[in-house]
Amino acid sequence: MKKHNFSAGPSILPQEVLLKASEAVVDYNNSGLSLIEISHRSKDFVDIMENARALVLELLGLEGKGYKALFLQGGASTQFLMVALNLLETRAGYLNSGSWAAKAIKEAKLYDDVYEVGSSKDANYNYIPKGYEIPEDYDYFHCTSNNTIFGTQMKSFPKTNVPMVCDMSSDIFSRTLDFSQFGLIYAGAQKNMGPAGTTLVVVKEDILGKVSRKIPSMMDYQVHIDKGSMYNTPPVFPIYTSMLTLEWLKNKGGIAAIEKENEKKASLMYSEIDLNPLFKGFAVKEDRSFMNATFNLTNDNLKDTFETMLKEAGISGVNGHRSVGGYRASMYNAMPIESVKALVEVMSELESKA
Amino acid sequence: MKKHNFSAGPSILPQEVLLKASEAVVDYNNSGLSLIEISHRSKDFVDIMENARALVLELLGLEGKGYKALFLQGGASTQFLMVALNLLETRAGYLNSGSWAAKAIKEAKLYDDVYEVGSSKDANYNYIPKGYEIPEDYDYFHCTSNNTIFGTQMKSFPKTNVPMVCDMSSDIFSRTLDFSQFGLIYAGAQKNMGPAGTTLVVVKEDILGKVSRKIPSMMDYQVHIDKGSMYNTPPVFPIYTSMLTLEWLKNKGGIAAIEKENEKKASLMYSEIDLNPLFKGFAVKEDRSFMNATFNLTNDNLKDTFETMLKEAGISGVNGHRSVGGYRASMYNAMPIESVKALVEVMSELESKA
Repeated sequence: MKKHNFSAGPSILPQEVLLKASEAVVDYNNSGLSLIEISHRSKDFVDIMENARALVLELLGLEGKGYKALFLQGGASTQFLMVALNLLETRAGYLNSGSWAAKAIKEAKLYDDVYEVGSSKDANYNYIPKGYEIPEDYDYFHCTSNNTIFGTQMKSFPKTNVPMVCDMSSDIFSRTLDFSQFGLIYAGAQKNMGPAGTTLVVVKEDILGKVSRKIPSMMDYQVHIDKGSMYNTPPVFPIYTSMLTLEWLKNKGGIAAIEKENEKKASLMYSEIDLNPLFKGFAVKEDRSFMNATFNLTNDNLKDTFETMLKEAGISGVNGHRSVGGYRASMYNAMPIESVKALVEVMSELESKA
Repeated sequence: MKKHNFSAGPSILPQEVLLKASEAVVDYNNSGLSLIEISHRSKDFVDIMENARALVLELLGLEGKGYKALFLQGGASTQFLMVALNLLETRAGYLNSGSWAAKAIKEAKLYDDVYEVGSSKDANYNYIPKGYEIPEDYDYFHCTSNNTIFGTQMKSFPKTNVPMVCDMSSDIFSRTLDFSQFGLIYAGAQKNMGPAGTTLVVVKEDILGKVSRKIPSMMDYQVHIDKGSMYNTPPVFPIYTSMLTLEWLKNKGGIAAIEKENEKKASLMYSEIDLNPLFKGFAVKEDRSFMNATFNLTNDNLKDTFETMLKEAGISGVNGHRSVGGYRASMYNAMPIESVKALVEVMSELESKA
């Protein structure tokens, strides 16, 4: 049976990417060797790394604008630390829009003064804080573009002269934005880009080198830039699979093309949530994420029936995060609209049964 | 043509592991989903993680002895930093036996006093320093069991009451040792355990919690222990493939069984180096590594001939590291003795031609 994979991350990847990645594990490019048993300094892998780095800048429209793309390790959680180590000299502002934002704040506080310029914690993060100010003397401003757990997404970003740092783990490559408004973007691969195990960092080089502390080598963006993202052995398989996904996206027409599909999927999903009296959306409407739709049953007695129906339809990964409860439909780039239709159909069938 | 893969790392893995890992990328366990697109919190992946962690302790003979196994990210290079952050309160002793040891020393020096108790830098690291003392008041002693670049290996370890920390990146699981003499062992996966992208840490829990600094969450061993090595999204594919390799090793009879094979391979290799007048070993005999044999041609004019012959025999990955030059034959666990025979045959053929 066809599975509909709504997992929040690690999450769905294009089938053609999975097939190519699988082949490479046995024999890469007819070399007689597996991709994962060759040197990362071999021409084969250096080409993969360079291609992946170039595709990132091309897809984001950042070529020739002073940005470098890095494929690091340790997830967004390590970036919480690296951002502070590399950029925090005296004080920084953070937007507290969800659990991950709160973790980023906690880690940065180890290093210096960190201020929450806005927070939606009071409402269990069901909206994006707005109307906040970013003082001109802050070293940087940090925000989270999409809050996977709560299903909210920033639709606009503040105008500021302070370097803007954005955790785009769960919506990078999903919508057109002026990416040059950001000084640093980071994203764990395991949503729209590839498997777990590598973290994309896109950094405008001129924001670096302004802190006085000594930075450990592995935590230093400049060290990784100078070594072409190969300071140490990189996570070969996650980077190769990410490169394949970036190529797939480019062949589909890039971010502008996928954005249209993502809008259609989200629109279908939210229409059902709003029109079906058995369901209620969690996030406020204006801040709804196009990647993760969070919703609850209005009648908890239907829980078992609904979940059995989901299972019978081959729908997996829709359980909500424990801090929100209910359901979460993650509709990343690789998800076909057919899967959203299958979920919406089950929801509508539940209504006709109830 | 059959390839003989002598790559120093990422390096050869068992063929059956590659096949299983490749299958899982398309369909894991007949679930209809790829291993790399399911949640790391799913039962499927939690089972993989727990199985991998248990296999590590079982193979090392460390079950029930207060040790925890973790699968982290960032390679040995990140461990250079984590070891110091978690264990270095006032001073520590390091054995400078190679380039990686020197990097470990450099990173730890950011935090506090670090002393080189012994060094073989004066001889381009062609031997293992011996006869050094480890003062009783050191927080820990750090050594590198096998020096991949130089082809040296510690045959014995000092007796000390100070916690012993060992970088075993290039010889873990290759030979029997009393692993309980170490307080902390770490190893990048990409030699004897799996693909690049995960780092094994085996730590005796009672050596932790003795430093006064605040440790960032991702750098804190205790945080990872408390979260069952799942504080954040782990590198799913590298861990799964490592688990398969550990299972393969267990089925072969464990470390004692593979050690016998490794001894045979090394003995074959070093015999040829010593008996063939065209070659000269780089490392001193008593410290020769059973994993990486380093050697040079005695007559540089034969370079092109030798390398053409290697290529024709399907032998790859034998170029020496730039800091040593010449050749390096890495003979990790997964390398069949046939590959070593193929290399030795080429060396001996060169002699008969010359």
